Amino acid sequence: MSYPDKISTTIAPEGSLEVLSQLEVNRLRDTSQQGIHDVLRQCALAILNYGGSTDDSRSVLETYHDFDIEIVQQDRGVRLKLTNAPAQAFVDGRMIRGIRELLSSVLRDIVYVSNEIEQQHRFDLHSQEGITNAVFHILRNAGVMKPSREPSLVVCWGGHSISREEYDYSKYVGYHLGLRDLDICTGCGPGAMKGPMKGANVAHAKQRRRDSRYLGISEPGIIAAESPNPIVNELVIMPDIEKRLEAFIRLGHGIVIFPGGAGTAEEILYLLGVLLHPANADIPFPVILTGPASSADYFRRIDEFIAYTLGEDARNRYRIIIDDPVEVARAMLQGVNEVSEFRRDHQDAFYFNWRLTIPADFQLPFTPTHESMAGLHLHPDQGIHDLAANLRRAFSGIVAGNVKEFGIRSIEQHGPFQLNAEPGLMHHLDELLKSFVAQKRMKLPGSEYEPCYTLASH
Amino acid sequence: MSYPDKISTTIAPEGSLEVLSQLEVNRLRDTSQQGIHDVLRQCALAILNYGGSTDDSRSVLETYHDFDIEIVQQDRGVRLKLTNAPAQAFVDGRMIRGIRELLSSVLRDIVYVSNEIEQQHRFDLHSQEGITNAVFHILRNAGVMKPSREPSLVVCWGGHSISREEYDYSKYVGYHLGLRDLDICTGCGPGAMKGPMKGANVAHAKQRRRDSRYLGISEPGIIAAESPNPIVNELVIMPDIEKRLEAFIRLGHGIVIFPGGAGTAEEILYLLGVLLHPANADIPFPVILTGPASSADYFRRIDEFIAYTLGEDARNRYRIIIDDPVEVARAMLQGVNEVSEFRRDHQDAFYFNWRLTIPADFQLPFTPTHESMAGLHLHPDQGIHDLAANLRRAFSGIVAGNVKEFGIRSIEQHGPFQLNAEPGLMHHLDELLKSFVAQKRMKLPGSEYEPCYTLASH
Amino acid sequence: MSYPDKISTTIAPEGSLEVLSQLEVNRLRDTSQQGIHDVLRQCALAILNYGGSTDDSRSVLETYHDFDIEIVQQDRGVRLKLTNAPAQAFVDGRMIRGIRELLSSVLRDIVYVSNEIEQQHRFDLHSQEGITNAVFHILRNAGVMKPSREPSLVVCWGGHSISREEYDYSKYVGYHLGLRDLDICTGCGPGAMKGPMKGANVAHAKQRRRDSRYLGISEPGIIAAESPNPIVNELVIMPDIEKRLEAFIRLGHGIVIFPGGAGTAEEILYLLGVLLHPANADIPFPVILTGPASSADYFRRIDEFIAYTLGEDARNRYRIIIDDPVEVARAMLQGVNEVSEFRRDHQDAFYFNWRLTIPADFQLPFTPTHESMAGLHLHPDQGIHDLAANLRRAFSGIVAGNVKEFGIRSIEQHGPFQLNAEPGLMHHLDELLKSFVAQKRMKLPGSEYEPCYTLASH
Amino acid sequence: MSYPDKISTTIAPEGSLEVLSQLEVNRLRDTSQQGIHDVLRQCALAILNYGGSTDDSRSVLETYHDFDIEIVQQDRGVRLKLTNAPAQAFVDGRMIRGIRELLSSVLRDIVYVSNEIEQQHRFDLHSQEGITNAVFHILRNAGVMKPSREPSLVVCWGGHSISREEYDYSKYVGYHLGLRDLDICTGCGPGAMKGPMKGANVAHAKQRRRDSRYLGISEPGIIAAESPNPIVNELVIMPDIEKRLEAFIRLGHGIVIFPGGAGTAEEILYLLGVLLHPANADIPFPVILTGPASSADYFRRIDEFIAYTLGEDARNRYRIIIDDPVEVARAMLQGVNEVSEFRRDHQDAFYFNWRLTIPADFQLPFTPTHESMAGLHLHPDQGIHDLAANLRRAFSGIVAGNVKEFGIRSIEQHGPFQLNAEPGLMHHLDELLKSFVAQKRMKLPGSEYEPCYTLASH
Repeated sequence: MSYPDKISTTIAPEGSLEVLSQLEVNRLRDTSQQGIHDVLRQCALAILNYGGSTDDSRSVLETYHDFDIEIVQQDRGVRLKLTNAPAQAFVDGRMIRGIRELLSSVLRDIVYVSNEIEQQHRFDLHSQEGITNAVFHILRNAGVMKPSREPSLVVCWGGHSISREEYDYSKYVGYHLGLRDLDICTGCGPGAMKGPMKGANVAHAKQRRRDSRYLGISEPGIIAAESPNPIVNELVIMPDIEKRLEAFIRLGHGIVIFPGGAGTAEEILYLLGVLLHPANADIPFPVILTGPASSADYFRRIDEFIAYTLGEDARNRYRIIIDDPVEVARAMLQGVNEVSEFRRDHQDAFYFNWRLTIPADFQLPFTPTHESMAGLHLHPDQGIHDLAANLRRAFSGIVAGNVKEFGIRSIEQHGPFQLNAEPGLMHHLDELLKSFVAQKRMKLPGSEYEPCYTLASH
Repeated sequence: MSYPDKISTTIAPEGSLEVLSQLEVNRLRDTSQQGIHDVLRQCALAILNYGGSTDDSRSVLETYHDFDIEIVQQDRGVRLKLTNAPAQAFVDGRMIRGIRELLSSVLRDIVYVSNEIEQQHRFDLHSQEGITNAVFHILRNAGVMKPSREPSLVVCWGGHSISREEYDYSKYVGYHLGLRDLDICTGCGPGAMKGPMKGANVAHAKQRRRDSRYLGISEPGIIAAESPNPIVNELVIMPDIEKRLEAFIRLGHGIVIFPGGAGTAEEILYLLGVLLHPANADIPFPVILTGPASSADYFRRIDEFIAYTLGEDARNRYRIIIDDPVEVARAMLQGVNEVSEFRRDHQDAFYFNWRLTIPADFQLPFTPTHESMAGLHLHPDQGIHDLAANLRRAFSGIVAGNVKEFGIRSIEQHGPFQLNAEPGLMHHLDELLKSFVAQKRMKLPGSEYEPCYTLASH
Repeated sequence: MSYPDKISTTIAPEGSLEVLSQLEVNRLRDTSQQGIHDVLRQCALAILNYGGSTDDSRSVLETYHDFDIEIVQQDRGVRLKLTNAPAQAFVDGRMIRGIRELLSSVLRDIVYVSNEIEQQHRFDLHSQEGITNAVFHILRNAGVMKPSREPSLVVCWGGHSISREEYDYSKYVGYHLGLRDLDICTGCGPGAMKGPMKGANVAHAKQRRRDSRYLGISEPGIIAAESPNPIVNELVIMPDIEKRLEAFIRLGHGIVIFPGGAGTAEEILYLLGVLLHPANADIPFPVILTGPASSADYFRRIDEFIAYTLGEDARNRYRIIIDDPVEVARAMLQGVNEVSEFRRDHQDAFYFNWRLTIPADFQLPFTPTHESMAGLHLHPDQGIHDLAANLRRAFSGIVAGNVKEFGIRSIEQHGPFQLNAEPGLMHHLDELLKSFVAQKRMKLPGSEYEPCYTLASH
Repeated sequence: MSYPDKISTTIAPEGSLEVLSQLEVNRLRDTSQQGIHDVLRQCALAILNYGGSTDDSRSVLETYHDFDIEIVQQDRGVRLKLTNAPAQAFVDGRMIRGIRELLSSVLRDIVYVSNEIEQQHRFDLHSQEGITNAVFHILRNAGVMKPSREPSLVVCWGGHSISREEYDYSKYVGYHLGLRDLDICTGCGPGAMKGPMKGANVAHAKQRRRDSRYLGISEPGIIAAESPNPIVNELVIMPDIEKRLEAFIRLGHGIVIFPGGAGTAEEILYLLGVLLHPANADIPFPVILTGPASSADYFRRIDEFIAYTLGEDARNRYRIIIDDPVEVARAMLQGVNEVSEFRRDHQDAFYFNWRLTIPADFQLPFTPTHESMAGLHLHPDQGIHDLAANLRRAFSGIVAGNVKEFGIRSIEQHGPFQLNAEPGLMHHLDELLKSFVAQKRMKLPGSEYEPCYTLASH
C-alpha cells in the first residue's frame, strides 16, 4: 500500500495563539505576507519534517520546494493553511498534536519577536540590560518560566553529528539524570541534543514523573538543520545565536557538554567567557564535560585548548568525567542542589538567572561575513574575555559556514572564510579544527567535509 | 480576647505578577510612586475591606486613612508592602489566599491599563475598533477569556441596595442558574451582585461542579463602594464605566436584571441601546428582568419608561418574569443554548462577542460634571440610539453623584446636577427616580437619601 | 407556574457501584428484595428529601408513603429505579449530582454491611478487635480514609435543634476552622451538624482550598430525622450508633462540641468514657466545648454533671471556650498539630486512630427497650468507665425515644422508659434533662416536647 | 567507579496496600510466612530484575539465590523488607517508583488470589460462571477496569524471542496504534510484548496523550522468564495461564498477533477456539496477524495449520497483513470502533466483555505432566472446540517445558513429554514445531534449543 508524501490542509493553532484580538490577527496576516514569511516557512518546514536526517537545510527546502504556510483569518481566530506539507506530520489526515504544538510555538515566537521586540522598540537592543530584558520577555511569552518549580533544568550541549557510541552514551547520561528527577534542555536537534532527552524520557516514565520538561531552544538559522526531535515538549525560537546562548545559561541550572564540533566549541567558549567574568565568580554553576571512554582524547584536547587560551582558572569551572553516566548524574544533581540553595539564600528566582553578568561582547549579534571573520582579533594580547568573545565568534562563523543557509551560500560564492590568528593560537586552533574534521564532527556522516575556513597567522 | 484591627506586613503577589522582568518591576515602582498610587491604594483598600457594609467610599477611606500600599522590589520579583491594612483580610498573620488573588488582580489591571493602554498608545481610544481592542486586551491580560469553555456566563445586574426579600430572591435565581451549570458574572458588590453568586455557589457544590466562575467586573471609581464579595474568584478592573459595560456584554452569554436604582437603569439603557442597533438585530442575546412578587410594580414602571422612551421594539428584546426563579433559569439556559448554536454556526468565538456592534456614543467615556450633565440633550426629537445614549449618561451621572468619590465631592461643592429634559420625558424620568428614592434604591439602608440631581423641563 | 412534587425515574449509581460483577449484581438484587429493602428505602428517602425540616422520621415517611426504590440489573451494571421520589432532588428531570453521589453512598454502605459484615462472618462482632476491624472495613470501603492527607478532620457535635444564635455561632466556628485549612466531620443533619460545614465552606472558598472534606457519618435509625445537608460531600452509613461513635473518634483529629440535647450528652459521655481509659492517657486528642455567650450556663451545667459523675480528671480532657470562635479555631489547630506530631513520632496512621483503646462496653450495641432501660445500673458504686458506659446508654435510649422510629413507636405503645438511678445521680440527671427540655433541645422548634422517660431513684 | 550489585532495604508499598486493617496485616504476614512465600519471592525478583535478558527463570534465581522478601508489620501499615535485591532497581538507595508500583501490584494480586479466591471459597472454581467472576474480581481489585474509558485496549501477542527485524516491526505497529490513541496490553515480557509498548509510548508522547495504558498481564509461572518491561504501568498477576488468557480476551477490544513460538500458538488456538463458539458468532472482535515481509512464510504456515485443524471458518475470524504497520493500525482502529458501537448498542460494559462465552474446556486449568500430555486426545474425530482446546493444552505444555520452572525440572527428570496424535495432525504439528525451532522461536538467542517433547502417531 502506498501513502501520500505531501498533504495540504488547514489547521487551528494551539495554546497562546488561541485568543487573538482582531488587531493582532490583522498584524499577523500582514507580517506573514511581508517580512517574516520566509523565516516562518523555513521554521515550519523544519518542524513538520522532524524525522528528516540531513543537516543541509537546503536539501530539505528543495524536497519541499512547493511547501507553503499561510495565516488565514476567521471570526474565531486564525487558521494555518498548509500546502504540500510533509505527510509524516499527520495521522489519517489529522496533524499529530505534538507537531501542532511545536508549529504554534514557532509561529508564536517569530510573531512576538517581530512585533514586540523588533518593531515596537520597547527594548534597547544595544545595551546589556535591554538585551537581557528582551530575552526574558521572549522566554516569558513562550511560557517556559515556571515560578513554582524547583531547579531541575540541565542543559545538554554537544554535536548533532556524533558516533553511535557517543549517542548511546548521551542517552545513558540522560537516563541517569532523569532517574534523579532532572529535566533536559537542549538545542533540540539530533545527536547529543536528542540522546539525553530520550534517556531521560525512559527514566521519567520509570519514576512515574509527570510534567517532565524537554525544552528545546533553537533559532531560525539553525532549525532547518536541527529539526526538533519528537520528545521536545516545549520549544522556543530565539532570534539569534547570542540570545539563544543567553537563554540557555539564564534558564539552565547546570550544563553537561558532550563531544561535538564547532558549535560545541562555540558554546564552551561562550560559557567559560561568561563564567570567568569577575562578577560571576561566586555564582555556582555546575559544568560537566563527559563522553564514553573513546572520547577521552577529545576532551583532553579541548581541555588543553582552554588551558592555552583562557588559562588555568577556566579549568576550575568545569569537571571532566569519562565513561561514568552515574557519576555525571550524581555530580550534576549535587551541583543543581547547590544552585537551589544559593538562589534561596539570595532570594533569586529559580526560573531565570538575573544575577549572572553577561558582557555586551557576548550579547551583541555577530554576523559572520568574509570581512568580519577576517577581521576577528585572535591574539593573546588582549583580556581573557575579549579573546574568549572573539574565539566564540570564530567558531560561530564556522558553524554558519557549515550548516546555516546564508553561510553555505556565502562560502559557495566567495570561498572559505579566512581567519587570522597569532601563530601559537593558530597552531592550537588548527589542531582542534583538524581533529573535529578527522572525527567527522563537522557534518552528518555520509558526506565528505569541505572546510569552510582557512587559517592564517599574522 | 481582643484582636488587632490593622496589620502591617509584606506579601508576595499571585499569578500573573509572579514573573516580571526588571524593566517591568522598575516601571511598576515608578508608576506606583507617581501617577496611579491613589487609584491603587483605593482599590486595594476595597479588596481588603471586603465585608464592610457602607457604600460611602469616603467613610471607608477615613477609617483606614493611614492605610498604605507600596511596591517593593526584590531579586525574585516584587512584594507588596501593606501598612495598617484591615485585619480581617488575614488569618493568624497570613493574608487569606482569595484576598491575595483579588489584590493581585487589582494591581495587574491598574498596571496594565496604565502601562499598556494609556502610555503606549497602541490603541486608538477614540475609535470604535480601538476601544473594543483595548477592552479585549485588558480582559485577555486578566485571563478571563477561556477558549475551550462552552457558553455559560450569565451576567446579573441589579442594585447594591435592595430589600432582604429581593436579595433572597436573587439568591434563588442564582441557585437555579447554578443547578443548570451556568456561571455568574456581576459588578461584584453587595446586594443583587452578591446574591446570585451565593446561590450559584451552593448549587454548584450540590452539582459537584468544579471550576465554576464567579467573575466580578469593576472600575476604580466604584470599587470602594462595591467591594468584591468573597465568592468572586475572578476579578477585572476596567478603567471606566463604558469599558466595564462593554466587557459585560461582550463576555456574557445572557443577562438577568434584578431590581435596582440609577445604576441598574443605566445598565438597561446601555444594553437596549446597543441591542436596538440594526446591525445587532439578528444576534441572539437573552435578557430577563425578574424579581419577587413585591417587585412587580417596579418592573411595570421600568417597562413603561422603556416603552415611552425607546418604543415597543425595545420591549421585544427582554422578558419580564415575576416570582419564578425556576422559570428564569430555564429560560436563560435555553437562551444561552441558542447563543451557543448561533456562535457555532457563525464560527464566532465563545469567549468574546466580536460580532456585536457598539456605537461610539456608548463607548466614549462620559465625565459627569455639572456642565456636561446640564448639557445632555434629553429630548424625543432624536434617534432612539441617541436618546438611549443620553439617558444612559444621565443615569451614569446620578450614580457618580450618589456613590463615586469625585461625584460626591462635586455635589458637595456645587449642589445637585441639573438635568434638562423635554416635559413629557421629564415627567417619566421624575416618576422613575422618585420611585427609586421611595424604594430606598439609591443608598444603602440606614441613611436618608438626598437627591444629587434636579430636573428641569425645557 | 407549578412544578411536580414527585418524580419517577431510573438512574445510574455513582462511584464504587459502577463496576460490579454479575455475582454481586445478583446478590444486590436479592438482598434488596428481601432483607434490607426497608432500610434502603428509608435512607434513600432521607437523602432525596434533604431540605425537609422535620425531625419526625415518620412524618417524612407518610408524605412519601408511595416512594419506592428498586435495584434493576442491566448488562452494563445496575440501575436504581425510583418511584415517586421528592422532586426537589432533580433539575429538569436529572438528579442533582451530589444527591446521586449521596444516594450511591447509602446503597454502598447498606449493601456492604449486609453482605460483607453481617452475612459473611468475617469479623467477630462480639470482640473488641472484631468490631474495630469491622468499623475500619466499612470506612475503607466507603473511601473515607485518605493515606496521603495530613491530619485536618475536626468532628463537630451538637444538637440538631438549636437556637438561631447558637446556629450562627457554629457557623462562625466553622468559618474560622475553615480559614485554618481544617475539614469538618459531623453527624450530617441540621443545626450544629450543618452550621460548621456552611461556615467552613465559605472559608475554604476564600482560601481557594480545593478538595475540602465535609464528611457526614450517620446511621439508618437516625438519618430520616437528620437528613444530610447539601454540603456533605462524603457520607458513610454505619450500622449502629456505637460503630458510628467509634468511627467519629477513630477518624477525627479533634472534637468541637456545641450545645445540644440528649444526643450530645451521649456523645460527651462516650468520648470521655473512652479517653479516661488508662491506656489512652497519653494520647493527645483536643476536645473543645463552645457556644455563644448565651450558652455559658448550659456548659456550666454540663461541666458540673461531668465533674459529679466522672470526676475531676474528666475535666482535664476538655476545654470550655465561650463566645470566641477565633480562639476555638486557634486552639483546635494547635491540638491537631499535636496529634500530627504524636502520630508521626509513633509512626501511627493519620487516617485511623488504631492506638485508641475502646472498651467493649462502649462498642457492643445497646438496644433501648423498656426492659433494658429500666435495668441500667446508674449508681456511683461502680468504676468510672462502667458508669460512663451506662449513662451513655441511658442518653442513647432517650434519643431513640425522641427521634428514632422504633423508639417513638415503642414509647407510644408502652409509655415512657423508666430509668432507675441512685438518688444523688438521679437529681443531677433530672436537672440536666429538665434544662434540655426547657431550652427546647429535645425536639425541633414548634412542637411541644413530651418526655419519653421517667426517673426513679432506688 | 564501581557500584554495588545488591541492596538490602525496607520500603513502603504503593497504592492499594496503603490502607490495611490489622486483620489483613496479620493475614498477610501469616500467608507470606507459610504458603505463598515462594511465589511472592519469585515474582518480586522478576520485577526487580526487569532488565535481565535470560528466559531461564532458574538462572535468575541462581544469581539472586540469597534474595529475600519479607512483610513486616508497622503501626502505620506494612513494609516490605528486601534482602540482597538487584541494585538496578534503585537510584541512590531509593527504589525507582515504577518498580515499587509493580512490586506492590504483585503483592496485591498474590495476596488477593490467596486470601479471597482460594481460601474463602466465594467462587465455584469448577463452573464457567464461578471462574469468570473470579477473573473479574481479580481484575477489579487490581483497578484495571476503567468505567469511563472508551474502548482502546489492543492486546498484542507474539514471541518473547523474535528477530531484531520482527522486534522493530512490532515497534512500528505499536507506534501507529499509539498515534491513533490506542492503548497496549501484552504479556509484559520482552520481544513482541515489549516492542508495541515502546512504539506506542513514543507515539503517545507525540500526540501529547496523557494517561495512556501499558497493561501487562502475567502469571507466577512465567513472570521470571518474562520480566515486565519498564514501560508497563499497570500489572496484573493472574493465578494461571487459563485465567490470564481469559483476562486478555475479556479486557481487550482487539488483538494483534506477531510471530512467536509455542506460546503464541497456544494463544491463537485459545482465541479461535473461543471465537468459533456459536454463541460468539455475532460478537465483533478484530484479530490481525502481522509481521515484516520476512515473516510472510511463518504466517502462511500458521494459516495452513489453522485451516487444517479448525477449518475455513476459523480463517474468517482473522486477517493477515504483511509488512504494513499503518494498515494494521487503521484496520485495528476500525475494528475497535465497531466493538464500541456494538457494546453501546447492547448496553454492554466497555471494560469487561461479559457477553463472550468461554467454554469450560478453555477455562479449567491444565497441568502439563508427562501423563496429562501423553493423554491429550489430538485427533480430528472430535468437535472443533474440543480439538482446539486439546491443541491449546499441548502447546501450553510445551511452553511449560521450555520456560516454566516446574516444567523444566520435570523434563530434566523424566525426559521430553510425549504427545500422541493422529498421523495427519501429527505431520502438521511436527512441521509447525520444527519451523519454530528452526526460526529460534523457542528460546532466547544464544542457547541451543533442546525440544521438550516428542511426537508419536497413534
